[in-house]
Amino acid sequence: MQIGKVIGRVTATRKDERLVGTKLLIAQPIMLDGTLTGHPIIAVDTVGAGIGEQVIYVVGSMAARAMAYDGAPVDAAIVGTVDSLESEH
Amino acid sequence: MQIGKVIGRVTATRKDERLVGTKLLIAQPIMLDGTLTGHPIIAVDTVGAGIGEQVIYVVGSMAARAMAYDGAPVDAAIVGTVDSLESEH
Amino acid sequence: MQIGKVIGRVTATRKDERLVGTKLLIAQPIMLDGTLTGHPIIAVDTVGAGIGEQVIYVVGSMAARAMAYDGAPVDAAIVGTVDSLESEH
Amino acid sequence: MQIGKVIGRVTATRKDERLVGTKLLIAQPIMLDGTLTGHPIIAVDTVGAGIGEQVIYVVGSMAARAMAYDGAPVDAAIVGTVDSLESEH
Amino acid sequence: MQIGKVIGRVTATRKDERLVGTKLLIAQPIMLDGTLTGHPIIAVDTVGAGIGEQVIYVVGSMAARAMAYDGAPVDAAIVGTVDSLESEH
Repeated sequence: MQIGKVIGRVTATRKDERLVGTKLLIAQPIMLDGTLTGHPIIAVDTVGAGIGEQVIYVVGSMAARAMAYDGAPVDAAIVGTVDSLESEH
Repeated sequence: MQIGKVIGRVTATRKDERLVGTKLLIAQPIMLDGTLTGHPIIAVDTVGAGIGEQVIYVVGSMAARAMAYDGAPVDAAIVGTVDSLESEH
Repeated sequence: MQIGKVIGRVTATRKDERLVGTKLLIAQPIMLDGTLTGHPIIAVDTVGAGIGEQVIYVVGSMAARAMAYDGAPVDAAIVGTVDSLESEH
Repeated sequence: MQIGKVIGRVTATRKDERLVGTKLLIAQPIMLDGTLTGHPIIAVDTVGAGIGEQVIYVVGSMAARAMAYDGAPVDAAIVGTVDSLESEH
Repeated sequence: MQIGKVIGRVTATRKDERLVGTKLLIAQPIMLDGTLTGHPIIAVDTVGAGIGEQVIYVVGSMAARAMAYDGAPVDAAIVGTVDSLESEH
């Protein structure tokens, strides 16, 4: 899974009908110190995450499993919010 | 999912028969401010997207789910068009 | 899917038995103007593509669907040849 | 699979219920000489790995197979700890 | 599929039980002229490849198909050894 920060939200009226009712958040990967890195992606929120929160997200086909209805064409889903990152090199 | 802009279209007469009748668009990833980034990919359009539009596309095996017939060899599909991107760091 | 150019062919006598009889081509991604970019990959040809041709190829698990026998350990397959790329920024 | 070093741990109280009880470690890819490289990811530990250990981890949908319950939305799992890396160029 | 060179071997006593008995080789991608490039990965050997050989390897979920027992948590497998690479730009 990836660690990211929620930095925004997408509004899309015209979309696959299986995405209707989903909350599509923009998440960007972060380093362990919280610095933004890489490119933002769009992930379905399944845990009630908010803008500014650090989150854990799954990518690829396993992301679809996070949804109540498993048949949606989804490749990224937020599956947790981060309480703390303990790092030690 | 990725956010991209539709920048073109591919014509391919000789192709897998399950791709016959699909609209193959060229999408390139964009940053939140709309700037093109990364490399263009080819995605099946499932929502009637047009050249110049900002779109949401799914990559990997979940993209095949966006198609009416799920058996096609497809790894990228446009599943929505973007109304707005609200970002906040 | 990716747009690439066929730049070679691999011969491999010792291989998984489900790959026996397949044509393994070397494809390299191209930009819309035809310039080679990125790293070459090996893809199973399913449409009779030849060296020098521009092709569309699928990567990941969906590539296996392009094969007549779906059980092969394959992660890249050429599924079309490009007639034209119309691009507009 | 990837070779990485466990450099930390994530605590996430609010998460997908199928992740409850899993140990979520932060692993970073390493080169053969042990140098850290690339970006850290979060992987479910299935072999009792500890911080500082070199590990083998699987990414993508196959990672979910490493779990006792195969239905979890997981895209990275630690499946072994490294005794030794013998390299020869 | 990728073209790589086998540059080493991993020993891992503590591992997922479905990996017991597998030969875990370290492969690094190569360019067509044989130059090493990118980052090394760990792949299950299914064709009797040896250190120093050029090989074809599959990544992602399709790699698991290369194994006699398809249920293992594996995301990379060597499926052939290269006799020759014919390239033509």
